[in-house]
Amino acid sequence: MEIRDLKSLVRYDPEKMAKIPIFHSERMFYDLYALLPGQAQKVHAHESSDKVYYALEGEVVVRVGEEEALLAPGMAVLAPAGAPHGVRNESASPALLLVVMAPKPRFSRGFQGPLLN
Amino acid sequence: MEIRDLKSLVRYDPEKMAKIPIFHSERMFYDLYALLPGQAQKVHAHESSDKVYYALEGEVVVRVGEEEALLAPGMAVLAPAGAPHGVRNESASPALLLVVMAPKPRFSRGFQGPLLN
Repeated sequence: MEIRDLKSLVRYDPEKMAKIPIFHSERMFYDLYALLPGQAQKVHAHESSDKVYYALEGEVVVRVGEEEALLAPGMAVLAPAGAPHGVRNESASPALLLVVMAPKPRFSRGFQGPLLN
Repeated sequence: MEIRDLKSLVRYDPEKMAKIPIFHSERMFYDLYALLPGQAQKVHAHESSDKVYYALEGEVVVRVGEEEALLAPGMAVLAPAGAPHGVRNESASPALLLVVMAPKPRFSRGFQGPLLN
C-alpha cells in the first residue's frame, strides 16, 4: 500500500520553493510545496489541468486570475485549467501547502503577472 | 476566486458518513469525508480514477487492495485506479478526511470485501 507520513517528508530549500512529490500518476500530481519567507511559485497556467492549493501550515498569498487572497491553514483554493495562478510567502514563517493537480500537466505556460514578478 | 475555509464546511451525519463536496470538475473531485465512530465507506473501486485519502483529524482504518493500515493525521494513502478501497472509523472519535479523486469517476464498482462488510 502506498501510504506516506507527509510530515516526515517535509524539507525546505533555502534556494527556492521546494516541491515534494507524494504521489504522481497520469491522472494526478499530489505534492507538498514548502515555502520559506520570501519564496514563491511564479504565476503560470496549465491549459488542461485543475490545481487546488490547501494550506497545512503558515500563510501564503495566492493569486488566481486577477484576484489575490490570503490562504491560511485549513483553507483551499481552486485554480481551474487555463487560469494564471501562483503563491508567495510574504509572512515571516515557513508555509506548507498540499497541492493537487489533475491530470498530469502536459505543458505549462509562463505568465508575467504584475504582482508576483 | 473559489476559496473555501474547510473547517466551516464540516458536518457530521449520524445516519452515515458525510461527503462534503469542496470543488468538483470533470478533472477532479475534492471532498471532505466526515466519519463518526463506526461509520465507513464501503470497499469499492473506480476503474479509471485514482483516489488519495489524507487524514485531517481522527484516525481511520484504510483498505487498498488486500491490505489495511491505520491512517492518522498527516498521513496520505493512494488508491490507484482499479484497486478496491474503503475506509472505516473504528475509533471512539470523529474522523475527518480530505479526499481527492481524479478524474471524475464515470462509474464505480461495488466490492464485497471480507473485512469491511
